[in-house]
Amino acid sequence: MGHIPEQQSAQRDARRRPEGAHAGAGQRSAAPVPTSADVARLAGVSRATVSYVLNNATAVRISEPTRQRVQEAADELGYVPHAAARSLRAGHSRMVLMPAPAVPVGLLYSHLFNELQWALRRLDYTVVQFGSLGMSGDDAARAWAELRPVAVLAPGDGTLTPRGVHVLKRSGAKAVVTLGPQRVQGAHALLMDQRAVGHCAGAHLIGRGRTRIGVVVPREPGYETFSAPRLAGVRAAAEACADARVVPLGLGYDERSANQLAVRWGELGLDAAFAYNDEYAMLLLRALQDAGVDVPGETAVMGADDLLLGRLLRPRLSTVRMELPTGQRLAELVDRVVRDPAGTSEVHPLLGVEAVARDST
Amino acid sequence: MGHIPEQQSAQRDARRRPEGAHAGAGQRSAAPVPTSADVARLAGVSRATVSYVLNNATAVRISEPTRQRVQEAADELGYVPHAAARSLRAGHSRMVLMPAPAVPVGLLYSHLFNELQWALRRLDYTVVQFGSLGMSGDDAARAWAELRPVAVLAPGDGTLTPRGVHVLKRSGAKAVVTLGPQRVQGAHALLMDQRAVGHCAGAHLIGRGRTRIGVVVPREPGYETFSAPRLAGVRAAAEACADARVVPLGLGYDERSANQLAVRWGELGLDAAFAYNDEYAMLLLRALQDAGVDVPGETAVMGADDLLLGRLLRPRLSTVRMELPTGQRLAELVDRVVRDPAGTSEVHPLLGVEAVARDST
Repeated sequence: MGHIPEQQSAQRDARRRPEGAHAGAGQRSAAPVPTSADVARLAGVSRATVSYVLNNATAVRISEPTRQRVQEAADELGYVPHAAARSLRAGHSRMVLMPAPAVPVGLLYSHLFNELQWALRRLDYTVVQFGSLGMSGDDAARAWAELRPVAVLAPGDGTLTPRGVHVLKRSGAKAVVTLGPQRVQGAHALLMDQRAVGHCAGAHLIGRGRTRIGVVVPREPGYETFSAPRLAGVRAAAEACADARVVPLGLGYDERSANQLAVRWGELGLDAAFAYNDEYAMLLLRALQDAGVDVPGETAVMGADDLLLGRLLRPRLSTVRMELPTGQRLAELVDRVVRDPAGTSEVHPLLGVEAVARDST
Repeated sequence: MGHIPEQQSAQRDARRRPEGAHAGAGQRSAAPVPTSADVARLAGVSRATVSYVLNNATAVRISEPTRQRVQEAADELGYVPHAAARSLRAGHSRMVLMPAPAVPVGLLYSHLFNELQWALRRLDYTVVQFGSLGMSGDDAARAWAELRPVAVLAPGDGTLTPRGVHVLKRSGAKAVVTLGPQRVQGAHALLMDQRAVGHCAGAHLIGRGRTRIGVVVPREPGYETFSAPRLAGVRAAAEACADARVVPLGLGYDERSANQLAVRWGELGLDAAFAYNDEYAMLLLRALQDAGVDVPGETAVMGADDLLLGRLLRPRLSTVRMELPTGQRLAELVDRVVRDPAGTSEVHPLLGVEAVARDST
């Protein structure tokens, strides 16, 4: 939490102190949180019986009237079991924890995540996205472990360390799966190497005879994880061609920034742009056209993601299509490794890429 | 969880049974999950001391060497406290729980959520998005309550009931805040009435002399919460004009569906479309142009959300701009009501709307 200034931290402590444990006269919710003992007392049964009924334990037979009495008492008191306590008793939870992305998600991720979430739900898991923003890898792993997830699906970007994996497993996680370019010892890896995206775009542009390639690097913070390897991928593709050179281009996601770049396009002497993704490519394409640059005549523009919206501009946007796994396939993979915690770490290269040539390159 | 077929449910149970509580010879993670008692034993201190150190309790003075010994023992064993147990001891957690949206999120929500998440983080809260997909309101509230959040920010769409609010408060939540069109007893309400969006679009189109207004209703499941009130809002605006009529138009988010709608546009006899949001509007605008319909000459097209991408098409898309609160303002509001749990329920109308006339209407 290095990003929280000292002063705020002090304010925070000051704010926390007076609250106490459900303290404070006049607070509407000052009544203590009901416990299973309260439920047992009201229902006239043992705490064990309450636990059996509310956790749907099947090992013990409980008569229907008793079951109903316990349920009614719990309802009356507003008692719900602790998730963590319950998972402790059951030996496992059904929570799949995913760190929430630190940057606004794009349309492609939004759809994949939605699919994954529903597919895991159908397999009786609950996906929890945890906002461990700004924490170091080990601090984040400890914070995730506190929720006792049965599986963690974390970015494979170097944040999670082998030590973090160990902490998670010691806390009961049956599977830790990374999604990204790097492998972490002890975790399964779904490898998604963003360099492949850049390499695919670079090779496509060079194949079209372009040799002076600008590569858009979004100015918005948090995109480095994706933009740096994409840039490296274009550079790698350019090595195959003696004439080719690659120029990084900072671009903010707004019309002004795009217009500023477009008006000095002539000075840059470029004949192609790989614009990070389709959204930035649409922005740059329009700005270049407004500045009188002929696309693709003078300059080719290429995006990535194959968004529907990219097909709506004219010329239609060429793009890198990513062949991501379906949410269903990802969910099945998570389920399989959770059910085989003793299995060896699996590595699946997941990101297929393909250049889709439309009219802008 | 009514959407899970019987058969899957049976499979689920079959799958669960053999797992047991950390059972199973040969499982790599078969060692029991370390407890604070294990840490206390290794460090040669009491469990209370372990608890004081690991929960950063300031009420008790603990020498630095002891603190270090406990920390080292915890690290060695891979022990992390239970989140729920810790919040029980502290009397409160710092978790703000938000149900994860059931549909892929759009760019506008994605940006607002990201802002909110960072702003709450700066106030030392952790945002957890909980995937309670397909659960009834009361089941969902119980599942949320199990994580013992200090605040819940739930959709105000009728899912959450007064009973659900009660369950959450009884479990220790200091504030329940709804975000959406409806108020729920016992909860603070950030009112966002989607009818206003439709009304604004309808009034704008009628003001431009259009009287035969098609309203796009996305075919993708899960959008009804937004699309139905937006349609109702256009209808309400049309009541002010005797000549105006409103026709709902089903549209899937793909080019084929848009083209099918566009080729029969002449038969529909419409002179305007409010296309749900900018993404659908961009799709429809392009399809109409490809089908030879003059926009805005023959037909006006209007979106909503004021996305940057909508400004990139020609004609530039007219839209309904929503004046959402900043993430910072929302976070401050959540923080304020958490710190005053005895305060009366607050109601804030949040959604300002404004027609942005560009070139498509």
